[in-house]
Amino acid sequence: MTSRHPLSSFGPVEAVIAPLQDLLKDRVSLARAVREQHARGEGLATSLAPDVVVWPLDKQEVCAILALCNEHRVPVIAFGAGSSLEGHVSAPHGGVCIDMSRMDAVIAINPEDSDCIVQPGITREALNGHLKGTGLFFPVDPGANATIGGMVSTRASGTTTLRYGSMAHNVEALEVALADGRLVKLGTRARKSSAGYDLVHLMTGSEGTLGVITEITLRLHPLPTEVAAASCAFPTLEAAVDAVTELSMSGVPFARIEFLDETQVRACNLHSQLGLAELPTLFLEFHGTPLAVKEQAELAQEVTAGHGGTNFEWATRPEDRSRLWHARHLAYFAALALRPGCVSVVADICVPMSALAGSVAQARALIDAEGLVAPILGHVGDGNFHVLFMPMPDQPEEHAAVDRVYASMIEHALSVGGTCTGEHGIGMGKKSKLLLEYGSEVVDLMHAIKQAWDPKGILNPGKIFS
Amino acid sequence: MTSRHPLSSFGPVEAVIAPLQDLLKDRVSLARAVREQHARGEGLATSLAPDVVVWPLDKQEVCAILALCNEHRVPVIAFGAGSSLEGHVSAPHGGVCIDMSRMDAVIAINPEDSDCIVQPGITREALNGHLKGTGLFFPVDPGANATIGGMVSTRASGTTTLRYGSMAHNVEALEVALADGRLVKLGTRARKSSAGYDLVHLMTGSEGTLGVITEITLRLHPLPTEVAAASCAFPTLEAAVDAVTELSMSGVPFARIEFLDETQVRACNLHSQLGLAELPTLFLEFHGTPLAVKEQAELAQEVTAGHGGTNFEWATRPEDRSRLWHARHLAYFAALALRPGCVSVVADICVPMSALAGSVAQARALIDAEGLVAPILGHVGDGNFHVLFMPMPDQPEEHAAVDRVYASMIEHALSVGGTCTGEHGIGMGKKSKLLLEYGSEVVDLMHAIKQAWDPKGILNPGKIFS
Repeated sequence: MTSRHPLSSFGPVEAVIAPLQDLLKDRVSLARAVREQHARGEGLATSLAPDVVVWPLDKQEVCAILALCNEHRVPVIAFGAGSSLEGHVSAPHGGVCIDMSRMDAVIAINPEDSDCIVQPGITREALNGHLKGTGLFFPVDPGANATIGGMVSTRASGTTTLRYGSMAHNVEALEVALADGRLVKLGTRARKSSAGYDLVHLMTGSEGTLGVITEITLRLHPLPTEVAAASCAFPTLEAAVDAVTELSMSGVPFARIEFLDETQVRACNLHSQLGLAELPTLFLEFHGTPLAVKEQAELAQEVTAGHGGTNFEWATRPEDRSRLWHARHLAYFAALALRPGCVSVVADICVPMSALAGSVAQARALIDAEGLVAPILGHVGDGNFHVLFMPMPDQPEEHAAVDRVYASMIEHALSVGGTCTGEHGIGMGKKSKLLLEYGSEVVDLMHAIKQAWDPKGILNPGKIFS
Repeated sequence: MTSRHPLSSFGPVEAVIAPLQDLLKDRVSLARAVREQHARGEGLATSLAPDVVVWPLDKQEVCAILALCNEHRVPVIAFGAGSSLEGHVSAPHGGVCIDMSRMDAVIAINPEDSDCIVQPGITREALNGHLKGTGLFFPVDPGANATIGGMVSTRASGTTTLRYGSMAHNVEALEVALADGRLVKLGTRARKSSAGYDLVHLMTGSEGTLGVITEITLRLHPLPTEVAAASCAFPTLEAAVDAVTELSMSGVPFARIEFLDETQVRACNLHSQLGLAELPTLFLEFHGTPLAVKEQAELAQEVTAGHGGTNFEWATRPEDRSRLWHARHLAYFAALALRPGCVSVVADICVPMSALAGSVAQARALIDAEGLVAPILGHVGDGNFHVLFMPMPDQPEEHAAVDRVYASMIEHALSVGGTCTGEHGIGMGKKSKLLLEYGSEVVDLMHAIKQAWDPKGILNPGKIFS
């Protein structure tokens, strides 16, 4: 492995503070409380504050900030909603945190083309608010109300990826401020293109290490004419997962297939008053025309019944569906509430469908063997599942047990052709796992791109690469 | 713009010939006829022969060829079926053509995971032959019986991309021999991953300039339980395209929506005895369950009727469907047969749906104004269309007229947010258009990756970059 960029050679942040204040006036903060608020996302407990936080209002300001930081070799970290789980927004080398939350405009909505252009600081819920009345929606749903810029940067996905794809499938074009402050446009508004290297996909998932996104053209989707949701309980975890594997082979475009184990169902019952049987459970959603939804639902009932599924409960009214998915979105907080005072480690594994039942069962066995409290849930229709580990902060042996279980889960996932992260990204938390997954030659290929585009290494240093 | 790689500094090919013969025995050819067969694809008339053609049988041989050529700084061009349209396989700097056609094995088919692993030299028709009986198929269909390796390299798409996506959506993982002969694996068999930079998408569409693909993991799709196809004639080109735009906004996953103008219908009638009315025509295909297909077909009939569509003819029997799509696949050769002795220039434009009717009408008007014979056809459901220009080789004024029309079409496409190539790639033919589309700063970003991964510039030199 060639040596990575010399991270120790950053310049003093003091050199940029006065020019930033000249440029941005009161939209510059050195306050400790503000810096601490920008020191970490969710999940990974490591808190590493930037030296200064700034709030640009437009792309020209972003470019000016970057040009300045590049000149003085000061680290730059773009910050969205702070919902990332792997330490993407922490500042291990200090520097300037660019809080993008005030760049949250919808620039254009093009119903005929089913696309829109937005600034990166808009959240997915706010975007869907803007889209009301257009007949269109933006489907990618990671649970958290993340910003679109953050979702591009981590190549996010979530509960509806089964039908609508991840961010990798729904970003048409990007405007990006490069390390030196130049602004470039990548991609087009055409549905497809073979014009040169696919830099849109390269940027999508690059975690702020190749540029700061200033504008995003997103693919939108027509709202389905009919939506139905249901929950279904299973006697065992294996039965539930086997049902999902069979459903996935049908090719039917289910909108959502989410798994919650009995611990997670119990947490959601307590937190959201769901009143579900405390058994391994699938939440399903069907989108389409009335006929298509009826057909999908019948297939789902048949397949789940074949695997011992019972208590097939319909959530046909919009308010019942909202309750179900609201509970699913709050699963993370519901689980944390089971252990007041705990911290969280959210495992994120994705494996080929044929390996899913084995992977989930292995995780369950490892968790039980260590005596941990750790619900399993996930977007199992894609082979993606999570374990919510909840160690107590003052219990090092619990943390060690979590590390052992998680490391074994990842080893197993890689051994069956899977990945160490389905949707949360590498950040600071999984740098060693990326090396395990791809080996140093491939990580060096990635880093060669980073080096070529950001020769001074100012863009989100300490992430992805060791 | 920084200067591109110094292409004049290649080493003498003589240095590698004896070692290649030692390595590959009789699978090395210096014969003029063989070199000429590998001097060009379809479309672009430029014929530039390599110095030597080799046929590796496995990845180790590919790596050995690359290591040798890299050591002696000799150009390497990977060759599939020779169906590319933009001069991707020509050898402007001579060198070694690696004919991949003998590396055409299916390594694994995984029905539970709906994927397969193949060598790059297999053609899409051969792959679908291997998949018979599995209930799965590989849907990407560029018309030509291209190799899968070639389709990855040009980011190909085609008639079914509307429903199943392009190569950008159907490549899960790649094994690639780098310029210096090292072998790396990119991507995983999981349905999604956020592990580091998306090198699979970067390789897909890189036209042999970043590595030679030795193994491909492809996403497969379940065969639809029901398939129906139909053709429908329209009074005008605009009416047909407007119908497509309305269909595209429905969100219904039509499998194919292809447009043929009256000239192309006449050509197909003559070539394939279709007996269709010589009017602007759509070919449609519907995939799904019997109910879904019925619903899609009803919607299509209603929308097309609303735009003056008539002669809605069903091709319900498999043999009628095959005849329709066989005719569509032969459209290129059918058109060429209209002008014996002509050469071809296949325009490839993709625009946002809202601009499609205007773009096609503009192309038609330009063609007519120049008095050219040039049918229009295309995958209009994606906003992608082609003009088959057919100038006579000895008529420079016709070539000049073609160049004028095509240049105006591209300018218009770029002005409405489209791309200079929907699916054929850049190759040698569109290097100046890539610069026009993205500007030199973005092309420099692409080239910086090329430079970092292939410092001696041996991989398919003279393509993509000027």
